[in-house]
Amino acid sequence: MDVGGLVKRVLNGDRRAVARAISLVEDAAPELREIVSGLAEHTGRARIVGLTGAPGVGKSTSTSALVKALRERGDSVAVLAVDPSSPFTGGALLGDRVRMQEHATDPGVYIRSMATRGHLGGLSWAAPHALRILAAAGFGTVLVETVGVGQAEVDIAAHADTTVVLSAPGMGDGVQAGKAGVLEVADVFAVNKADREGARAAVRDLRQMVAQVDRDPGEWKPPVVSMTAAEGEGVDDLIARLDEHVEHLRASGGLHARRRERARREIEGIAMEELTRRLADVRGHAALDKLADEVAAGADPYAAADTVLAALES
Amino acid sequence: MDVGGLVKRVLNGDRRAVARAISLVEDAAPELREIVSGLAEHTGRARIVGLTGAPGVGKSTSTSALVKALRERGDSVAVLAVDPSSPFTGGALLGDRVRMQEHATDPGVYIRSMATRGHLGGLSWAAPHALRILAAAGFGTVLVETVGVGQAEVDIAAHADTTVVLSAPGMGDGVQAGKAGVLEVADVFAVNKADREGARAAVRDLRQMVAQVDRDPGEWKPPVVSMTAAEGEGVDDLIARLDEHVEHLRASGGLHARRRERARREIEGIAMEELTRRLADVRGHAALDKLADEVAAGADPYAAADTVLAALES
Repeated sequence: MDVGGLVKRVLNGDRRAVARAISLVEDAAPELREIVSGLAEHTGRARIVGLTGAPGVGKSTSTSALVKALRERGDSVAVLAVDPSSPFTGGALLGDRVRMQEHATDPGVYIRSMATRGHLGGLSWAAPHALRILAAAGFGTVLVETVGVGQAEVDIAAHADTTVVLSAPGMGDGVQAGKAGVLEVADVFAVNKADREGARAAVRDLRQMVAQVDRDPGEWKPPVVSMTAAEGEGVDDLIARLDEHVEHLRASGGLHARRRERARREIEGIAMEELTRRLADVRGHAALDKLADEVAAGADPYAAADTVLAALES
Repeated sequence: MDVGGLVKRVLNGDRRAVARAISLVEDAAPELREIVSGLAEHTGRARIVGLTGAPGVGKSTSTSALVKALRERGDSVAVLAVDPSSPFTGGALLGDRVRMQEHATDPGVYIRSMATRGHLGGLSWAAPHALRILAAAGFGTVLVETVGVGQAEVDIAAHADTTVVLSAPGMGDGVQAGKAGVLEVADVFAVNKADREGARAAVRDLRQMVAQVDRDPGEWKPPVVSMTAAEGEGVDDLIARLDEHVEHLRASGGLHARRRERARREIEGIAMEELTRRLADVRGHAALDKLADEVAAGADPYAAADTVLAALES
């Protein structure tokens, strides 16, 4: 593979090159090192917005509405739909992508699902790589969409400048949001399907929850936006809040802190991936078979692990 | 903590000691090494049955029905409900446990949820440890119940002697089962809610899918059982299939192969956990902050990861 050529084409915004590079991330390809190194100095420009929420709240519709509104003001937008957990949701994501057909012919929009299963380094490693590629290709905004509200989705917030937590009336999301994790990661709450019964109560509950958190003076207080993405209502309000949040981060130094944290996770993810690779090399050895036999027969698994670790270091 | 005393109490089947030991697994406590080493030679006796399936198929009801049927033939049963992915489903699992109240006063039944989030070594490390503890406490059968049909749930099959994949009519599970992973891990399929419309079609679809897989002569062909767990119907049939599968594994040498694979994953999981701990030590260093700052400013993350790995080895 002509890696140098691929890097150049990504920097020129060539979609096929972008698609190829993200596939290499999915495959944990050895060429990634050279690609990421080549793109590194060109990847700080994009604004990264994370979007998360339980199934059924209208994530895909909201993403599509956000893309439309951002395009109307001249921004270019990439959507990265990260599927961190399951080999079984690929089809659903594909369905989401079909619904995004309205942007299919717009060169200022790029939409891509990415599976990250199978990497122990996981999201911490793959997501920043993909974000680098999309930023280097020149997109002004990258929307990272994740499915559900699990740990992996909380983790994605670490990669975004601004994280939007979506909910909808009657989904019990007030309760979910109150649980550990979501309140801490949300920079903006959006209650979708605002035309439905219970929407006002959902907004009120979230606002109350936000109000109960102790904050330092000048600290960001997550706004709660009400919208009906399918009708495009409230979307401009959401975008205004996103802009305010980035301004707040810039003014407070928080933007640098978040990007440093993202870099830290990426470094750790690369290191873990490398360690996993070395472990896989050891795994291939007959020695590990013998250790596993002994442990299955009643030997101490910790002593066996010590033997493996010693082999890693030699 | 008196670790030696805890090990003895687990071996005597003391429930409070079992609960304490599994909490130590959740916490990745340093005492685990001594506990697992102390239990290692007493942990090969239990039969491990994995139960998985999408939300809504009746996993909890099926587990309860299986426990009842196994108790009626004099087996002692532990249920380990593993929640691998999310901080948000703990409540649901708690709800499941409430439904299991009918076994609450039976000393031959032990039910426990275990969260494994936050460990990079994850399930591969925590599940075998918990299974060791339950086996050492003398339970004849351990049912490992997982939520959903994601990658983590496919992984759990690696820890079981026999894996049951549950589905229900109208859940689209035929489609899910057909996707990568589930067909390969299922030793027995059970279609629950057999009194509902579409149950026969679901059984037929699964049987067709099973029939399409190429098998060597003498290789196990997963049976498809139809049951209504809430009424106790079909549960004895399911247990008979579980027994047949274990007999098949014993006769074919597959039981040893599975237990060796489980030991291999446990060894690797312990090794990964140790590497993660070492990485966390490095993460605490000011050096990583500086590297992250440089990477956020455009430096090469791979070169930074090399620096971290070099620090791990020194």
